[in-house]
Amino acid sequence: MADRRKQIMEAAVRVIAQDGVRGLRVEKLAAEAGVSTALIYYHFQDRAGILRSALDHVNSRAERYTDGASDADNPRTQLERMLLLEIQDAPTVRENSVAWGELRASAVFAEDLRDTLRTTTAAWGHDAETLIRQAQAAGLANPAIDPADAGERLTALVEGLSERWLSGSTSLERARELLSGAIDVELGESDSRQQREQVVRAAPSPSEP
Amino acid sequence: MADRRKQIMEAAVRVIAQDGVRGLRVEKLAAEAGVSTALIYYHFQDRAGILRSALDHVNSRAERYTDGASDADNPRTQLERMLLLEIQDAPTVRENSVAWGELRASAVFAEDLRDTLRTTTAAWGHDAETLIRQAQAAGLANPAIDPADAGERLTALVEGLSERWLSGSTSLERARELLSGAIDVELGESDSRQQREQVVRAAPSPSEP
Repeated sequence: MADRRKQIMEAAVRVIAQDGVRGLRVEKLAAEAGVSTALIYYHFQDRAGILRSALDHVNSRAERYTDGASDADNPRTQLERMLLLEIQDAPTVRENSVAWGELRASAVFAEDLRDTLRTTTAAWGHDAETLIRQAQAAGLANPAIDPADAGERLTALVEGLSERWLSGSTSLERARELLSGAIDVELGESDSRQQREQVVRAAPSPSEP
Repeated sequence: MADRRKQIMEAAVRVIAQDGVRGLRVEKLAAEAGVSTALIYYHFQDRAGILRSALDHVNSRAERYTDGASDADNPRTQLERMLLLEIQDAPTVRENSVAWGELRASAVFAEDLRDTLRTTTAAWGHDAETLIRQAQAAGLANPAIDPADAGERLTALVEGLSERWLSGSTSLERARELLSGAIDVELGESDSRQQREQVVRAAPSPSEP
């Protein structure tokens, strides 16, 4: 049953990333997931339930691919990887970023998603804040900065830059460069510039599946 | 004739801000503007033409209300006002921000708007860059920072924070506070903290019409 839920949610993210939230019809989702509409209603009650679960699903997908950042050798590098991993041209990431942006944009018009979106956004900012505190404790970030402010700004900047990238106003490389620079500006320059270069270079190339 | 165009464009921004780009039907726009669909086609050719012109219109409306920043007594204050004026709860600004966000979000799915969006975005970043250069020349910003990077990041952050505000993930006050802090972080602390407080306080209160 958990598998069926997951299968439906994977299909929902695909449909949203292709056609937007407003393109998501239950019939279309059923066809894409290869299940009956009845099963979808059984698991998610209604369209609002589907969208809320899709937002959670996008979020846990993002956590999964940014988990790769946790083997970084220090919290500052981990923060940088976690944020930069949100802006890369791997198909899963692009799909996730488009779906996240769409869900946020649709919440401007409909209130259904706002609570889930607020909770998820706050948790993401808090993850960044925690890494910034750890970087401060390790002497890798300016001790005078406010970690909560910096975490909220950096994650909001990821959203702003992602949307510019996805809508063709800026290149992937430029968006990553600006984000990387923002971390230096927020946390203060560190001696880890070489590490940073490695992070930027370690991004999958656009041709990678 | 210019008046009719403007009247149609004002209606287009209203419709987009209410129902999103995907809610914009030519018949609905005609009703909202109080003109015939034929007149709309005459002026804007097709739906893509309407959306491109609407983007230009949103942009020139924003220029008009941020022009109020130009009587600031120095370029740093002017930059701060210009950016903060994009996040305030005046109805025109909210309508404009919603429409701008929607036009950007829809460009993720459709390519029609991308050129106009890219040009407009670049011009906005360039305005910020110019003010940052002037602030540097006046000794009001760290001379070591890259004005183009800072300008692009600050305008992208305005978009990210606006979207969080409009989708209910952050309060207006918090968004403004974070943006104001970002200017200090990007340009370096100046002695103008008092001026900054004034700018923040000068924002219209939510209850203002």
